[in-house]
Amino acid sequence: MIAITLPDGSVKHFDAGVTPMDVAKSISEGFARNVISASFNELTVETSTPLMKDGSLILYTWNNEEGKKAFWHSSAHILAQALEQLYPGIKLTIGPAIENGFYYDVDFGEKTISEKDLKEIEDKMLEIARGKFEFSIRESSKTDALDYYKKQGNEYKVELIENLEDGTITFCDHDTFTDLCRGGHIPNTGTVKAIKLMSIAGAYWRGDEKNKQLTRIYGISFPKQKDLTEYLELLEQAKQRDHRKLGKELELFTFSQKVGQGLPLWLPKGAALRERLENFLKKAQKKAGYEMVITPHIGQKELYVTSGHYAKYGADSFQSIKTPNEGEEFLLKPMNCPHHCEIYNSKPWSYKDLPKRFAEFGTVYRYEQSGELHGLTRVRGFTQDDAHIFCTPDQLDEEFKKVIDLVLYVFGSLGFENFYTQVSLRDPEKPEKYIGSIENWEKAEKAIINAAESKGLDYKIEYGEAAFYGPKLDFMVKDALGRSWQLGTIQVDYNLPERFELEYKGSDNEMHRPVMIHRAPFGSMERFVAILLEHTGGNFPLWLMPEQVSILSLSEKYEKYSQKVLDLLENDEIRALADNRSETIGKKIREAEMNKIPYMLIVGEQEEKDGTVSVRKHGEGDLGTMTPNAFSELIQKAVKEELKEFNV
Amino acid sequence: MIAITLPDGSVKHFDAGVTPMDVAKSISEGFARNVISASFNELTVETSTPLMKDGSLILYTWNNEEGKKAFWHSSAHILAQALEQLYPGIKLTIGPAIENGFYYDVDFGEKTISEKDLKEIEDKMLEIARGKFEFSIRESSKTDALDYYKKQGNEYKVELIENLEDGTITFCDHDTFTDLCRGGHIPNTGTVKAIKLMSIAGAYWRGDEKNKQLTRIYGISFPKQKDLTEYLELLEQAKQRDHRKLGKELELFTFSQKVGQGLPLWLPKGAALRERLENFLKKAQKKAGYEMVITPHIGQKELYVTSGHYAKYGADSFQSIKTPNEGEEFLLKPMNCPHHCEIYNSKPWSYKDLPKRFAEFGTVYRYEQSGELHGLTRVRGFTQDDAHIFCTPDQLDEEFKKVIDLVLYVFGSLGFENFYTQVSLRDPEKPEKYIGSIENWEKAEKAIINAAESKGLDYKIEYGEAAFYGPKLDFMVKDALGRSWQLGTIQVDYNLPERFELEYKGSDNEMHRPVMIHRAPFGSMERFVAILLEHTGGNFPLWLMPEQVSILSLSEKYEKYSQKVLDLLENDEIRALADNRSETIGKKIREAEMNKIPYMLIVGEQEEKDGTVSVRKHGEGDLGTMTPNAFSELIQKAVKEELKEFNV
Repeated sequence: MIAITLPDGSVKHFDAGVTPMDVAKSISEGFARNVISASFNELTVETSTPLMKDGSLILYTWNNEEGKKAFWHSSAHILAQALEQLYPGIKLTIGPAIENGFYYDVDFGEKTISEKDLKEIEDKMLEIARGKFEFSIRESSKTDALDYYKKQGNEYKVELIENLEDGTITFCDHDTFTDLCRGGHIPNTGTVKAIKLMSIAGAYWRGDEKNKQLTRIYGISFPKQKDLTEYLELLEQAKQRDHRKLGKELELFTFSQKVGQGLPLWLPKGAALRERLENFLKKAQKKAGYEMVITPHIGQKELYVTSGHYAKYGADSFQSIKTPNEGEEFLLKPMNCPHHCEIYNSKPWSYKDLPKRFAEFGTVYRYEQSGELHGLTRVRGFTQDDAHIFCTPDQLDEEFKKVIDLVLYVFGSLGFENFYTQVSLRDPEKPEKYIGSIENWEKAEKAIINAAESKGLDYKIEYGEAAFYGPKLDFMVKDALGRSWQLGTIQVDYNLPERFELEYKGSDNEMHRPVMIHRAPFGSMERFVAILLEHTGGNFPLWLMPEQVSILSLSEKYEKYSQKVLDLLENDEIRALADNRSETIGKKIREAEMNKIPYMLIVGEQEEKDGTVSVRKHGEGDLGTMTPNAFSELIQKAVKEELKEFNV
Repeated sequence: MIAITLPDGSVKHFDAGVTPMDVAKSISEGFARNVISASFNELTVETSTPLMKDGSLILYTWNNEEGKKAFWHSSAHILAQALEQLYPGIKLTIGPAIENGFYYDVDFGEKTISEKDLKEIEDKMLEIARGKFEFSIRESSKTDALDYYKKQGNEYKVELIENLEDGTITFCDHDTFTDLCRGGHIPNTGTVKAIKLMSIAGAYWRGDEKNKQLTRIYGISFPKQKDLTEYLELLEQAKQRDHRKLGKELELFTFSQKVGQGLPLWLPKGAALRERLENFLKKAQKKAGYEMVITPHIGQKELYVTSGHYAKYGADSFQSIKTPNEGEEFLLKPMNCPHHCEIYNSKPWSYKDLPKRFAEFGTVYRYEQSGELHGLTRVRGFTQDDAHIFCTPDQLDEEFKKVIDLVLYVFGSLGFENFYTQVSLRDPEKPEKYIGSIENWEKAEKAIINAAESKGLDYKIEYGEAAFYGPKLDFMVKDALGRSWQLGTIQVDYNLPERFELEYKGSDNEMHRPVMIHRAPFGSMERFVAILLEHTGGNFPLWLMPEQVSILSLSEKYEKYSQKVLDLLENDEIRALADNRSETIGKKIREAEMNKIPYMLIVGEQEEKDGTVSVRKHGEGDLGTMTPNAFSELIQKAVKEELKEFNV
């Protein structure tokens, strides 16, 4: 008899040789039908692997990351089998699960395949799936394994096996197919109900461009047809909402090859949008007692030697800027904190002056390889909505809570309702990894958990995820398409106060080190605008919209009246434009809808006579006729409801 | 007989050998008494130099730069004589006039002198001055000249003479003193009535630190004692108003050795002040049809190769920023125009879209040698209130006028009432120096003069002062101490549109090049704040003041009432603070005056009872008692009167 511990802590006893699937069935037949993968004592096993000793068992379904991984890895086996059947003589290499689906890298020899072949391969895969062939793991000696692939002339698998240790080598069989494999499969091929091969790409063997180029086939699979349909719809939506596409259409930003990749140029509408976001945060920050500062975009190398950034990141960053003589050396600033520490150090402080909260929309530059760059989410220059709070250890608790309030206010005002948080703490078993006294760490960790608790945050604790300089709290936001983004971070720092020898005079008349909090609710203006674009599809909250109203005249005859309405709205600080072109009203409405303008005011003979406007709302249609003043009030009220004041 | 042409164009005839002083006397005895120097055919001459041929004569008085130069250079001779008399055996080197006064560099050999010796030297100089010794120029052969100084053992003068051509060498004699000298003196030493030796410094012979260090004595002299008194008062005022001193006292900005010299860090009060200035200009610019953009602080080297900046300034600038791999090369941006050109190029334009006006508070970085750096007026990183207008040649006239309106509005709102302008045009004789068609240049030059004329500007035209890429208009502002500063520039540019191949489609359906206007009313935020500090002595216009009001409670008992008044003012967006310390009211008032706070509100028992405040105005005293609401209205009215709306 062996004792099997389940995730809920319960222990069940079975005869040795029981399989994970047997354990699942002992819980319930219904549950067992959904189990597609398992781990035993933190090692991936098959659902059919006999368990021979006591241990902890986790059973995975499609709803677990691990379950999906087994599902997609198994699908790669099916893809490989289908390819072997359709293209005999090809050489298989590796086929892992990835974030969304799987791929297999194949040496097709003289053959070539193209996108139009994918349908046939999919069909073959579905045929194999319908066969409900069981996956089973089989051990092999290194000699046998090498022998097997040498006979096939597959130098790739031979190379892989040569790097493995004898006694650890396994194959996975299903139907007539076998593949070198470490394990972690679904029970049988029948679990796979829907398959889509997404694309074909070139890939070098082992990612090294000196090696032969292989053909990589990307695919995704699901346990239900409905899941695939939804996924493809989501992909299409994501494509429509791609911030790079919307940014161009809405004329928010652009890139120039001459200026350089990853260096966004904000066009007028984008710059104005960003300014509205900045002003919104500035206003809340002012209420919360922050003070704005401005610091340069470069600093002497020595500054970053002091901060420790140079030792850590120097070699992988933008290289240093030399001067024509005088032998000076500067660096583009990768973060604002060292500058803010120097501002703190520009005068002496007493505990009565603290906390000091220095905020800056500070543009920083970080080198990223060109292949890593992506629209506004991965850039080489970006503006952090940065602030550093310098406080006494006793103030940490209170300050942390205040920062959470501010972050929640920001998310709420921008329509991000769906988020969770991660509290990153020390690895308690490796105290040597961290700087700062145990006492202060305990104080800080307690402060963060306390704050998360008292603010009712949905949080999970991750031990060992803290930075070496302090614990932190990260906000993960789900967008309208269900994708998670890390937005907003609050970090405690004991390191920089030490390195910059920051001090304040305590009530005991002794000098003490303040604690620093780094925080950025948006994270960066660039990334935030990108995520907001993808979250809203360009239908920003009304208060943020580049243009809130478009006045559409029925013909040029009403241009004067249209202008009068425009003046009135602009006087009320409503962002409006007038479309007096000689186009049909239908076309004007379609274009305004395309441009995501929230309100359209139609003006013609009747409206001019009555001194009214006919109001249409984006995506909703007719709202009826009203006076321009009534409409102005309507908008102002809508904005007010959307954008509450921040109350400290 | 020779014909002497005077600056007013009149021609007078004299016997050959007439001296400039004779000519002056022929005009009037009174005028002649003020003449201290002259130039003949654009060469400096003595007032006693016999004129032997026809030519143009200019007679200078103390009110001309050239007159001052002769005065101060002559004073250097007097200093040298005094030093020789007091310290026999010293070696004289050079003694020129400078912007304010003169200096003499002397090798004192084994002797040393200190500040406390200056009084004795001054007295000796005044004694010489009172002797009314005439200055007279005497020619010498190179051999004689060398001989003279070799005998004295003065290797410095020997070195100077060795570099001169025989036949061009002159000495200047007065009293018992003689000095190698090219000429340009006042008639006699008696013209110098007041002398102040300012300081002693070390200076290397010929400015080369490999040479011997000499002693430099700085001095200044005047034709009236009153002028000296005024000058010393001005110096003292300038010292009190030094923006570096005020910036520190008012906590506006700081520098950090670690961040780097010439890289200002704006402290909270300074950053807020700068933001107010920026918002003020943004508001006016919005009315004037400008659109804000945001561009990165670096650009690829190629961008500046295209713009021509790299070829022109590359070697003397901050050097390029390399990447860890990929072999890319970036430069810190020295100006914003190339980035704005790339924004213009991001989409096609029609003549109907123009003018486009892109504005940015763009921070740029320019290398300056550390010895050249000075507070905020000479820095290595600064923020231009930059904008570039892209227009058709026909729109230039109108656009130029609009920019002038904006600049005048800015100056008026900030209390700079005293300014003149300089129109810099081509050198009409060197057309090859300039880029762009003659036709366009004529159009642009006419546009500038037209605009200056129609706006009633006090302008002077300087031929040959235009940049190679276009003509310009610069604004020179006089501050409260009478010093001139260049503030605000408007420049036409035909070069960048060419280099960046900017285009628009004209009404003729053909592609054309737009014209660019660069303009910056402030110039740079750093320099402008520095000048504003020195102009106002920190007493900024009320709308700009970091703190507008300080509420001074008579004792802690009135803290609650003081807070109530504070809340009311803050609610009206008045920047106020409460001083509830247990200090005497006298001390509180003195401190508020020191901090230049425009209004002080005193609150005590009576005020609390009556619901009033006792108002004191900075530098003016008591304004009586009123309700906080009445005071709030008073402030708001004062701001409104000071800061008019910009009307386009």
